[in-house]
Parts: sequence; structure tokens; C-alpha cells
Amino acid sequence: MTVKNAFYAQSGGVTAVINASACGVIETARLHPTKIHKVFAGRNGILGALKEELIDTSTLAPSLISALKHTPAGAFGSCRYKLKGLKENREEYERLIAVFQAHNIGYFFYNGGGDSQDTANKVSQISQEMGYPITCIGIPKTVDNDLPFTDACPGFGSVAKYVAVSIFEASLDVASMAASSTKVFIMEVMGRHAGWIAAAGGLAQPVALGAPHLILFPEIPFNQADFLKRVQETVNTKGYCVIVASEGVQDANGKFLAESGLKDAFGHSQLGGVAPFLAQMVKKELGLKNHWAVADYLQRAARHIASQTDVEQAYALGKHAVELALAGKNAVMPIIVRESDSPYRWHLSDVALSKVANVEKTLPRDFISADGYGITPACRAYLEPLIAGEAYPPYDHNGLPQYVHLPHQLIAKELKEDFAVA
Amino acid sequence: MTVKNAFYAQSGGVTAVINASACGVIETARLHPTKIHKVFAGRNGILGALKEELIDTSTLAPSLISALKHTPAGAFGSCRYKLKGLKENREEYERLIAVFQAHNIGYFFYNGGGDSQDTANKVSQISQEMGYPITCIGIPKTVDNDLPFTDACPGFGSVAKYVAVSIFEASLDVASMAASSTKVFIMEVMGRHAGWIAAAGGLAQPVALGAPHLILFPEIPFNQADFLKRVQETVNTKGYCVIVASEGVQDANGKFLAESGLKDAFGHSQLGGVAPFLAQMVKKELGLKNHWAVADYLQRAARHIASQTDVEQAYALGKHAVELALAGKNAVMPIIVRESDSPYRWHLSDVALSKVANVEKTLPRDFISADGYGITPACRAYLEPLIAGEAYPPYDHNGLPQYVHLPHQLIAKELKEDFAVA
Repeated sequence: MTVKNAFYAQSGGVTAVINASACGVIETARLHPTKIHKVFAGRNGILGALKEELIDTSTLAPSLISALKHTPAGAFGSCRYKLKGLKENREEYERLIAVFQAHNIGYFFYNGGGDSQDTANKVSQISQEMGYPITCIGIPKTVDNDLPFTDACPGFGSVAKYVAVSIFEASLDVASMAASSTKVFIMEVMGRHAGWIAAAGGLAQPVALGAPHLILFPEIPFNQADFLKRVQETVNTKGYCVIVASEGVQDANGKFLAESGLKDAFGHSQLGGVAPFLAQMVKKELGLKNHWAVADYLQRAARHIASQTDVEQAYALGKHAVELALAGKNAVMPIIVRESDSPYRWHLSDVALSKVANVEKTLPRDFISADGYGITPACRAYLEPLIAGEAYPPYDHNGLPQYVHLPHQLIAKELKEDFAVA
Repeated sequence: MTVKNAFYAQSGGVTAVINASACGVIETARLHPTKIHKVFAGRNGILGALKEELIDTSTLAPSLISALKHTPAGAFGSCRYKLKGLKENREEYERLIAVFQAHNIGYFFYNGGGDSQDTANKVSQISQEMGYPITCIGIPKTVDNDLPFTDACPGFGSVAKYVAVSIFEASLDVASMAASSTKVFIMEVMGRHAGWIAAAGGLAQPVALGAPHLILFPEIPFNQADFLKRVQETVNTKGYCVIVASEGVQDANGKFLAESGLKDAFGHSQLGGVAPFLAQMVKKELGLKNHWAVADYLQRAARHIASQTDVEQAYALGKHAVELALAGKNAVMPIIVRESDSPYRWHLSDVALSKVANVEKTLPRDFISADGYGITPACRAYLEPLIAGEAYPPYDHNGLPQYVHLPHQLIAKELKEDFAVA
């Protein structure tokens, strides 16, 4: 029996550390050449498998692979594409099997969030239901931190650090200017249905003179009258008011405050624009001079201020995914298990993909203060270790980070037919 | 004759390194106790002088002063307040003299941009026109980089680094996702009438696979049809299009694309919202999925990614301001003179405040590519040394920077009357 190859792909919104997981997968696979021959990376996630667009990582020098540890975004390309169920679109699964068979692929590593773990879970069913033997391991990744079971999701800690540091800095700026200029500052952050990223803004409070003063979570229905009252009170007592607003803030009817009307490929509404919406409200109703920022992709790509904890966990989970596969596990996702907050101690474990797929872990109510505008000590104790340590990338003499670009050289196709992706 | 005290204040929009200039002023003054007794910092800029709200920096431990070097924003508070001319508002000048006299102030150091240098210049006229002897030195500061004579303005290099690094990172993100998701990304940056900050985005081009593909400068009138054509062409050929847009982009009639209608205390329009404006246009006219970011204060407060060159120059200019005063110079501003691009060599000099006040240095046309959407090699050669080096702040074990908060303890007032600021 020939040694099987592995398929690895990146899925969903990319992060500052998903490439660190890729590095963990590839470096670990290279240590076991008698069990895993080559790692083929899918170009643009599962699309790479469907289209037979495979990047042979064995041709990439160790230094290039190692540089993935400090390079943000998805080095092999990612995708927003959700496989349908086996019964609804059997053709896609048959195509996957054809591609896997043509390239002797026996391992499937899929690196993504909730939707992607669902994809990994569906692919794992090929073994039983379609008789093609393949070991499927999901690798967690999402800035939203909304995957269940794992203590944290790689990508989140770095966004959390970016948000906490940025709002700390902006708060000092506003404090400097408030006497004669800006009174209200609003920073919009990501997190569609879970307030984890918004909560991270609260980490700055003890060091930023109490700012951010108000955090708006998707978990707490927005009450305009109460919000405006709190803004005015804060300006009256502190001289200024700093606000972190989740893009997913909703009214009591569950309607997003600023819905753009667009939907992504997973059918989720594409959000953006809560900050200018609130700024307009504050100007109109309170007449207060304000400024606002929308960090958008800057936050999830900010490898320059990545958390050391996050980079370590991202790598460890990629590494452990390979170890789990080699140990004969299947249809599982490696996870982080927290042992203690301070000092932060954790170990690796795993959980069945069927339990993970499509489950969203929102911020527990007891992580949000009673008034709904801040975080509790329990939330702080949870979050603090996740932003600890500065994992700086190396820089060129010209002042820019040395992020790596991997050539997307595709291996020769074995199949005659192209596959039209829906 | 008793040894005179000095007045120091911060003015206008704060930056990541204005406190480094404050540090240079205070540390240098402390080396000359026989010439400068104490440095009193104005609370909230010139307002501190008018209101007799003075912070005695001599009570602050050396470690606190030294920490200013790595702390963003204005540690003593800043203001947006422009003194009228001597003839128009003599009362303000009489008040300044009364406060200076009451506290034996013989030196006036004013740290700010174009408007602030105008204030410093007006104060310097007190000596001649109102018979109160005072040495006035302006210290340059502005993220807009639009002061004349000096090679660069402290604050700019750090924003430039932030913008170049951020757009590099976001470009990698978009490149990862473009196959099935976002095709156009727009980042709005500061720079009201000068495209220096937008130009800094162009520094990423050689390392970011050619992104940003389009830069919109305030110096180049916006042409909607041409812009949309370029966006579509870029998406067609590269798969995605990354855009840096200055907040000050104007149409052919000089109207800002996205004017909020508000004006600041200097009478300038308060801008913001060019990115969502363009995003809406791209969606409506081209139907392309897009994302946008508005960095706003995050960019000018981003001490965590400050440029080493910028921090060094900010400190050196503060230090030199004191040295100029002690050498008997008056009504001048210290400047950076470039000797060579690579290696970057510079020395300090000075220029008369009367020549600086209210002069705006915009991006030269030969720094902008012929098509109006990029930067030239000359621009790159100018900008590169300004973002060189990473001057990281120290961090706490909890993952946040150790920025210092100076107590704003005011010295006892000597004057009986309060002064109502207009």
C-alpha cells in the first residue's frame, strides 16, 4: 500500500494566525513521511478539491513553511462555500472522491469556523456512506470565537488584542481632545452574533481611565433611549464617552441596527456601518461632536499585533490535528482545554465534529455586566490570557513586515472533466 | 534675576509621538536648571495658559517623563483653539501676559501643526508689541505632514507605518478571499488637504502583490467614471481591487466627496465617510461585493506600531526646541533637514515661525504617478525612511501596552479673575 497524501484547506474568513495552523499541519506531517507522503493544499478551500486545484506543499522550502507562522490571511486562499448535504448534492461528494482517489488522498484537514466544521463533518461521512476511506479532522479557526468546546478559537486572541490595544490608544486620544473637540468616539468591531470581540474592548478599561465606557453586544437588545442617556451621563461626568459597538448589535426584534442588505455565500447578512449609524444618532439627538472608526478587515488581519497565546494555540491545533489523524482518530476537531486562568494553563483534547457543526457559542450572560454595557470579572479572567504576549513578525529594513507569499503552483490534473461549482 | 520658568503645551489633533516631543522638552530643560527653573505644562494646550491651568512637571518622577516617549496622545491634554490676531482680541494677549507674569514664565514652547505654529507666532509678538519678554519656540507636530520646511512632521511617520502595514495585511486578507467573496476593499485614511497619509499606503505595493491598486489623493480631482473603470479593470485582471482613499478626496469643483457638514473650531469641515460612500458606489454601479474600513483615530493613536524614525525625530525636535531657546533664538521652529534618502541621514535646523504659520505643504505632483492613482519612485524614496524601525512600547503581562497617565495636578492660581474663553 502506498503512503497516502493529505489534503489541507483554509475556509471562511481568514485570520492573523490561520497560517500558523497550516504551518503546524505541514511541519508535523513532514515529521512522519512513512505515514503521510505529501500535503496538498486546496487552492481557495474546498473549491480547490472540487476543481482539482491542488498546491503541492512538499515543493516549498522549510523556511517558507516556517514563515507561515508570522504571516496573516490565508496563504493558500480561502473560500466561503458550504457543501450541501450528501442527499441534496451527491455529485459534489462524488467529485471529491474522484479527486481524492486521483491524488491518493487519505487525510482531509479542514481549517475553519462553524460552517467549515460542518463541511468537514459532511466529508467524513464519505467513508461510511460512499465507501471511500478518508480520515477527516477539523481544525478550529474563527475570529468570532463562537465554536463550542474549545477554550478559544485561533484568530480570536489576536483580534481581541488588536481591539483592546486600539481602543486603549484611541481612548487616550479622545481624552486629550475632549475639552475643546470630540466628545464621543465609537469603534465598530466584528462579531456577527457573538459579542466576544466587543467584550475584548473591555480589557482596556482598567488601564484606559475607564474607557471604553459603553460596550454594545449583539446579545443585549439595543435600547436607544437608554443608550443616549448613558452617553450623555458619561460625557457629563467624564468629559467624553468611548464606545465599542459590535457589528451585530440588534434591536429588541432581532433586527440588525445597520444591515447592508447583502448576504454572504452562507446566507448570513453582510453587516457594517453600525458606527456611523450610532454617530449620526448621537449627533442628531444629543448634538455631541463625535468620531467613529470601522476596523473591518484591519482587525482580523492585524498580525503585527498578534497575541502570543493565539499564535501558539493556532500552531498547536494544526500540529495536533495531524497527530490525531495518525493516532487513528476520525471526524474530530482538536480543542484547547483550559486548566487555569492565572497562570494560564491549557492542554489539547478533541471532540466529535458532529457535536461542533453549526453550534454557535455566544457570550454567556454572566460575562456581561448587569447593566448590559460592560464585562464582568469572570469575562476578564477568561479573556486576559488570550491576549497575552506579543508575537511580532520580523520586519524588513524598509519598515514593513516580512510576510511570505507562497506560489500557488498547481499540480497536474489527473481528471479529464472540469467540475462546475454551483 | 530669578530663573525663568517655561510653558509647554500640546495643540491640535494629537499623535502617537507628540508626547515624545514633550519628553524631549522636559528632559532637556531639566539638564539646565540654571536657565530654566520649571516646565509648566498647559492643561489642554493654550487653554491652560488662558485659564491659568498649569501642570507643574517638576513634580513628576523621571520615570514618568521617560514613559512619555512610548505613550500616544496628549499627556497634558490638547485643544483646538486658534488665537485671533493681536488687534482683534487684545484681551487674550493681556491675559496670557498676566498668567506668564504671575508664574515667571519666560519661555513658550508650543507643540502643534500649522494652526498652532500660527498661535506660537502670534504669542511671539507679545515681546515686541506689548513689552513682555518671552522666548517663543514652535515644535512641529502633525500626522498630515503638511508643515513646510521640515523634512517630515512628527506623528506622520507612525501613521504612515500604520497605514502601510494595515493595508498590506488587509490586502493579503482580500487576496485570500476574492475567489468566492469580497472583491473590493476600501480603506479611508486621514489627511484633509494633503495626500501624504494616503501616499503611505503605496509603500505596501512592492510587497503586497501590487496592492493597494488605487490610491485616491485630495490633490487629484475625483473622476467617478474613470475610477469605476479602473476598479472593474483591476478586478478583471487581478481578481480583486484594494483602494486607499484619503478623507479629503474632492470632486473637480473642490467639494469633498463625503462632507459631514460639521466644522471644527478652526473652521475646517469635519470629514469622514468617504469609504462607505465609495463602497456604495461600487456596489450600485458595478455590483461588486466589497468591504470598507475607516481607521480614524486608530491610525493617529497607534503607538503600538510607531516608526522608530518618527519617535527619534519627535524627541529630537523637542530637545532642540529647548536648545534653540537657550541659545537665544526666538520665534522659530526646529526642523528636520534631510541629507540623504538611503541611508537616511538628517540633521536639525530651524526656521522663522512667520514663514511657517498657515502654510500647507501638499503632496508634489511628481510624487503622484501620471495616472493619478499611485506613487512615484521619488515619493517612495522620500517616504520609506520615515516608517523605518519598530519602536515598540513595553507591555504588561496582561498583554496591553504600558502607557503612562500623568496626573493633571494644577498649581495654585495666582490671579483672582477667571478668564472666559470665547
